[in-house]
Amino acid sequence: MTSQTKFAVILSGCGVYDGSEIHEAVTTLLAIDKSGSEYTCFAPNIEQAKTMNHVNGIADTLRGDEDNRNVMIESARIARGNIFDLKDFKAQNFDCIIFPGGMGAISNLSDIAEKGMNCTLQDDVKHAIDESYNNGLVIGAMCIAPMLIACALGNKGVCVTIGNDKKLAQEIDKTGAVHEICNATDVCVDEKLRVVTTPCYMLAKSIKEVAQGTENLVKAMMDLI
Amino acid sequence: MTSQTKFAVILSGCGVYDGSEIHEAVTTLLAIDKSGSEYTCFAPNIEQAKTMNHVNGIADTLRGDEDNRNVMIESARIARGNIFDLKDFKAQNFDCIIFPGGMGAISNLSDIAEKGMNCTLQDDVKHAIDESYNNGLVIGAMCIAPMLIACALGNKGVCVTIGNDKKLAQEIDKTGAVHEICNATDVCVDEKLRVVTTPCYMLAKSIKEVAQGTENLVKAMMDLI
Repeated sequence: MTSQTKFAVILSGCGVYDGSEIHEAVTTLLAIDKSGSEYTCFAPNIEQAKTMNHVNGIADTLRGDEDNRNVMIESARIARGNIFDLKDFKAQNFDCIIFPGGMGAISNLSDIAEKGMNCTLQDDVKHAIDESYNNGLVIGAMCIAPMLIACALGNKGVCVTIGNDKKLAQEIDKTGAVHEICNATDVCVDEKLRVVTTPCYMLAKSIKEVAQGTENLVKAMMDLI
Repeated sequence: MTSQTKFAVILSGCGVYDGSEIHEAVTTLLAIDKSGSEYTCFAPNIEQAKTMNHVNGIADTLRGDEDNRNVMIESARIARGNIFDLKDFKAQNFDCIIFPGGMGAISNLSDIAEKGMNCTLQDDVKHAIDESYNNGLVIGAMCIAPMLIACALGNKGVCVTIGNDKKLAQEIDKTGAVHEICNATDVCVDEKLRVVTTPCYMLAKSIKEVAQGTENLVKAMMDLI
């Protein structure tokens, strides 16, 4: 390759219970940087579904409350301020797009947490995945985020993993997608649709395993370019 | 060693501009896990000095405002909920204590941001550093956080680094501490006082360099045990 591979990283807030899982997001940025590639962070400029107290697990605020938090503003904490509104994402500027996990993926980037696979993807997220697929980008997702990809590309029979959870695997299969059982740090590669997924904290028992999973994910994505 | 080395990691919030720098905090946890050691996260259960919008760099709330954030509750995002009140820290339960950087170190764990080296350490922070020193723990700090160690142990002539910033180095020297110039991923080791420091984002140009710095820090700390 003569120029650096370009990754778009789509964040969904800052914290496992209401946004992007922080260890997954950070080790993704690290794996991209270590691979010699470059990253740009995006998030939708929308209100969070809720804002959770991460000590006691209680929702402090809900969508519509005056002091509820914004997905892009909170995601900026992970990106050290270098973040862009997902509505400005252009697939032609990137080689790869990648979705870290965390509850934000299923409550801010979509309403899967509420509606299961009768879900709707947030407009900018749907546009980003569709445009990425149509432009031949390699699409990556980890932890619970492969459910977004099943929603978007299930009708094309995409193969993804979220680990070995039977109930979630059945939900994924309902979309037309095919769920593949994987170990914590393994990757599921759909070569035809150019989609790579890995379980991370759906199965990982430590941050070391998460870092290995994200590194394997980034490597497998670059092999498909 | 017959049992795992135990690290206490002291967080100061969640985000570079008002808490712990997230990349430094996460790669510290990763380096500890990869070394075969274990970590426990602590933070003071106090209000933040301020809460910053990380997109536009403006303070949304200040200490005393009704909806200003709490240091321990925000730190719990990095710790995935597994966090303890710093006032319950007991040095005899640990081999090492480590302070990631970020503005939280100088605005929540101390008032250095406001008062320079005429500062006061937050009570629980002062107690944790003093008790760690008196119990022979290895003390680590990165980025701007070595200024906390200079405040606490300057009268013992501790040697630390915050990189190569001349003005900050002069401030550190005022406490009786000795500042040592270091490159981004190098460590400054004070063997006598058992203190190890590294510049991280004071000098690092990428997350890969930060991860290398925290790995070098953790390795140098374990060498002193």
